[in-house]
Amino acid sequence: MISDEPKTLHIAHLGPLGTYAEAVAINYTNFLKEKAEVKTQLCPYPSIAETLYAVDSKETDLAVIPVENSIEGSVRVTMDTLWQLDDLQINLALVMPICHALVSNAKSLETIEKVYSHPQALAQCQKWLNAFLPNAQLIPTKSTTEALGILDQESTTATISSKRAAQIYNLPILASSINDSPENYTRFWIISRVDVDVPDIYPHSSVAKSTHTSLAFSLPANIPGALVKPLEVFSQLGINLSRIESRPTKRSLGEYLFFIDLEADDSQSEIQLALTELSKHTEILKVFGSYNVLQISKSSN
Amino acid sequence: MISDEPKTLHIAHLGPLGTYAEAVAINYTNFLKEKAEVKTQLCPYPSIAETLYAVDSKETDLAVIPVENSIEGSVRVTMDTLWQLDDLQINLALVMPICHALVSNAKSLETIEKVYSHPQALAQCQKWLNAFLPNAQLIPTKSTTEALGILDQESTTATISSKRAAQIYNLPILASSINDSPENYTRFWIISRVDVDVPDIYPHSSVAKSTHTSLAFSLPANIPGALVKPLEVFSQLGINLSRIESRPTKRSLGEYLFFIDLEADDSQSEIQLALTELSKHTEILKVFGSYNVLQISKSSN
Repeated sequence: MISDEPKTLHIAHLGPLGTYAEAVAINYTNFLKEKAEVKTQLCPYPSIAETLYAVDSKETDLAVIPVENSIEGSVRVTMDTLWQLDDLQINLALVMPICHALVSNAKSLETIEKVYSHPQALAQCQKWLNAFLPNAQLIPTKSTTEALGILDQESTTATISSKRAAQIYNLPILASSINDSPENYTRFWIISRVDVDVPDIYPHSSVAKSTHTSLAFSLPANIPGALVKPLEVFSQLGINLSRIESRPTKRSLGEYLFFIDLEADDSQSEIQLALTELSKHTEILKVFGSYNVLQISKSSN
Repeated sequence: MISDEPKTLHIAHLGPLGTYAEAVAINYTNFLKEKAEVKTQLCPYPSIAETLYAVDSKETDLAVIPVENSIEGSVRVTMDTLWQLDDLQINLALVMPICHALVSNAKSLETIEKVYSHPQALAQCQKWLNAFLPNAQLIPTKSTTEALGILDQESTTATISSKRAAQIYNLPILASSINDSPENYTRFWIISRVDVDVPDIYPHSSVAKSTHTSLAFSLPANIPGALVKPLEVFSQLGINLSRIESRPTKRSLGEYLFFIDLEADDSQSEIQLALTELSKHTEILKVFGSYNVLQISKSSN
């Protein structure tokens, strides 16, 4: 007998248990299950690069990856890894409110000697750390939850993690909302291979399918004015850029790749025209597809 | 009696002793002394931000700060700190070849358990570290030389530093040229306050005084197409952008500052026109002045 069980979608994210990426993955699966009959399984990986390699090598169907934070900016490993891989597409952007807590078994702030967290989280709490833990040693980890496992043995150690992570690991919160800016959001992308059929969760308008298109390109080397040409293509067609980010090509100082988000759907005729025109002025052009943006509510954090 | 001793220029740089920034500062003082009768004193600071605060608060006359690396990209703290400060200008850019060595008292690679260095240096040697020290713990420090002082007590510890640093601290080099890409360069800027008279070291052509102009701007919030307008200003006047870098305003996700390097001198009439036009399309516009670029030879490393 052939089973009519729904397909299980495997979703890679930065682990271990309790990361913001995992919270985004959970929110995403909830959105999915409202729209389609689907089973999901979350698959934690030890680094952001490995979550992308997992989807690229067909170990998983999807990956949830952080793209940029409103305070610290772009996640470089995401851009650098995405540039190396082919045949990946963006299905959706999810914006996650970030609210950091100081998690520790210490009796008081005074006894804390070490604070572990992801470098982005440490940077986002810089002022708070300077004010309340000026003498603590700050130790970067691969995720906000990597060091939670050792807190039980160390009473002079803390981590910066989400409230949700503290609950999962059953650990006390010594201070809440310690991020320097309350307007702290991270944008994540849901990535799949282009040949994978991902259930669509966004209610489309009749006008355009998606609100954003992302792409990246390198330029023919050493041509003066090379950077202005591709940007003119969009401006002449009235297409708005919502983000431009440069990364070194790693070949030579002063040579860059550009990552651009456009406020348009790539099925629109203007975008089709722009991409054709753009390919004349670029060396390598990678289009990561069109997608919509969903905001995750603060209570999900 | 009034002394006619030459003025002593105090130059802030990331310390302690032996950093690449210090090597750049030494090269810069050598260039200076060829052109002008001047005394210099190097002043090490514990972070890049503090070197900029030192010149801003008149503790020093100049600061040597890293701007971007050909592999890892822009130095974010440099951009974020420069944006906060007023009345600073760029006097010169110096391009430093970077060649990392593994410095340790360990008898062999097999006995090394920990590797300390600046996060940029760790990232630039990632493949080498994966291949030769796959199990070593990688520990980020504030500079490539911060941990050199503890190597004498620890025979299972290494740092990634320059050859020059190993010589200064009289420590053995276990492996040379361990950076993954041989094309590894870091661009530094020599920064002063606008009211400080810095001796000019560059032989000017009769045509233009300087080859580059750098500026940064924020945009009026939430206006569609806001990003394209300022870029069109340069393109319409035929001014080439050699670099564009975005940073979050830290106010809200999707709002950016832009850092732009132009291939032109700000005394040229086109640039004057462009800056007047640009100020109509920007919220805050900071011009960091015009300067030339000097390459430091590989033997100086």
